[in-house]
Amino acid sequence: MADADGVPMSQMAREIFEQPEALERTLHQLAAQRTALGRLHATTRRVVLFARGSSDNAATYARYLCEIVAGIPATMGAPSVGTLYHSRLDLSGTLAIVVSQSGRTDELVEVVAWARRCGARTLAVTNDVDSPLAAAADIVVGTHAGPELAVPATKTYTTQLLALAVVVESLAAARRPFGDAMEAVPEQAEVMLAASTAAQAVAERIVGAEHVSVVGRGFSLATAAELALKIQETCGLATAGMSSADLQHGPVAVVGPHDPLLVLAGPDGPTLPGLTAVAGHGRQRGALTIGFGGDAVFRKICDASLDGPDLPEPLAPLVAVIPAQLLTEALARARGHDPDAPSGLSKVTQTA
Amino acid sequence: MADADGVPMSQMAREIFEQPEALERTLHQLAAQRTALGRLHATTRRVVLFARGSSDNAATYARYLCEIVAGIPATMGAPSVGTLYHSRLDLSGTLAIVVSQSGRTDELVEVVAWARRCGARTLAVTNDVDSPLAAAADIVVGTHAGPELAVPATKTYTTQLLALAVVVESLAAARRPFGDAMEAVPEQAEVMLAASTAAQAVAERIVGAEHVSVVGRGFSLATAAELALKIQETCGLATAGMSSADLQHGPVAVVGPHDPLLVLAGPDGPTLPGLTAVAGHGRQRGALTIGFGGDAVFRKICDASLDGPDLPEPLAPLVAVIPAQLLTEALARARGHDPDAPSGLSKVTQTA
Repeated sequence: MADADGVPMSQMAREIFEQPEALERTLHQLAAQRTALGRLHATTRRVVLFARGSSDNAATYARYLCEIVAGIPATMGAPSVGTLYHSRLDLSGTLAIVVSQSGRTDELVEVVAWARRCGARTLAVTNDVDSPLAAAADIVVGTHAGPELAVPATKTYTTQLLALAVVVESLAAARRPFGDAMEAVPEQAEVMLAASTAAQAVAERIVGAEHVSVVGRGFSLATAAELALKIQETCGLATAGMSSADLQHGPVAVVGPHDPLLVLAGPDGPTLPGLTAVAGHGRQRGALTIGFGGDAVFRKICDASLDGPDLPEPLAPLVAVIPAQLLTEALARARGHDPDAPSGLSKVTQTA
Repeated sequence: MADADGVPMSQMAREIFEQPEALERTLHQLAAQRTALGRLHATTRRVVLFARGSSDNAATYARYLCEIVAGIPATMGAPSVGTLYHSRLDLSGTLAIVVSQSGRTDELVEVVAWARRCGARTLAVTNDVDSPLAAAADIVVGTHAGPELAVPATKTYTTQLLALAVVVESLAAARRPFGDAMEAVPEQAEVMLAASTAAQAVAERIVGAEHVSVVGRGFSLATAAELALKIQETCGLATAGMSSADLQHGPVAVVGPHDPLLVLAGPDGPTLPGLTAVAGHGRQRGALTIGFGGDAVFRKICDASLDGPDLPEPLAPLVAVIPAQLLTEALARARGHDPDAPSGLSKVTQTA
């Protein structure tokens, strides 16, 4: 990516660097929708989210945000229950949020129709407001990332997180639960781009890994899952992304000496002590422990670390993923892969 | 395990072979609770499930069963929302089901208290009816697996599935949605044990793998997740378990020539065509495709396959996991690991 040797930047790298602008544009465009979205508060008693791939990780973030910030029970829906098993559930009082960059995954368009038949109100978050998904949903919240050409989602992912934060803010009983913090997101995205050189150095340390474990918890779980997915798709490298709590219930057996253990933490909050303990446990096992975010104690325990943003814990994931994207892009190139065109993947994915 | 050479059987193998008896005992014991459980139908409008490790995979099965067979919306709960973020959700009309073999994971005992404060009715599924979890819950459904000494859960997992099927049956509006099929489960468990030799042969074919991908969908997703967890914990081998739909949205990039792709399918049902397509796609990529269950077309597409049980699709997971357990135990030994005592794990896991 970074380009002292005259090597052309990857498309993925260019799109990573477009994120401050894409977030600024999306924040500005969605301001006009806030009043209309605010009306959802009165009728939404539950939320169910449907998505695949990176969008599913954005949905995971929204699920925690719903339950913790808005105090509304939220579920990650299983599309097959509707599209294949044709179960008829009572989804009255439920807002069904479907997240898809392209808006063209047939399965998710079908989910919208099914959820409506079950009594849900439907809301699409998509980067294409002219897509079949947008046409099918009651409410459309566009991300304004501009065209994304690299297969791995970057700017469409962070703008999805922002759009979902705007939606959840509108569901909360408290007015403006984030105060003015959302306004700082584009600038903090810019700050995160400074991790480029450090991410390159981390990539060089883990380039020979046979597999990678990635953990987060609570608000940082979505970022961990997204980093794991990105490494899988761009590097063809076996990567497990999971809750640090789940790691201890079995998968920790995979983490051996010198294996990379990537730990994603927020700036503070109730999951930080546990994530710090997991990083320490990883080092005891001889793992190469790489920290993202966290506080001074957390960073000191890790073998290497990349700084997180200066945002409150519930909003930190909006840009905390950027160093993870930079690491992924650098790691793909270091392993001889083209980050823009992963093996066997295309930009619009259909489900068999 | 199988023992022509006089090598002692592992404890895990012994416990795998105890499953027909454990299932028979659990089925018999739970018959007495059916009337009391039947009263839950009138007051349960939603279900939320909490668990970790293998119990979490059993909960995933119950989630599909709830939504598809009982027609009740079900959620996999995030424990940290209650235990760390202390969110106050409205869980009235909700049955909170907490699943734990030991009943001694503090986090899950705390989840029960939290769910009750939020207005949920609470039900514990545990192998120790004298555990703190059992004491905390409104309703206790015991599994009667007997003491399980090997760290990897086997007979406690299948008896959890059975107990959860009994609970969900009691929530369904239809009386006895499974007819008499549940009575056949212990015998079908016995039939599944015949896969021992075939599982050994499959283990020998994949013994040198660097990573393993495991997929299922709908009812077979839980079995896929459980097989992946088992391979991780007993073999220390990087293993991804996921929905076949999610595989296509990124992780398929990891599946290269000769890499094992394990596909878990039911005997029929709406997910079988898609799982057959994924197996075919895996073979096109040059993967070593191992099928579990499915029909004749599915088995023909796979490089090797292990038969599934003669049970209706919604009940097949109760014993379809047995060939997967046999494979895991054989693979652990083939790779020089002790299946009974995986690295870094113990029988009762606390969450940091």
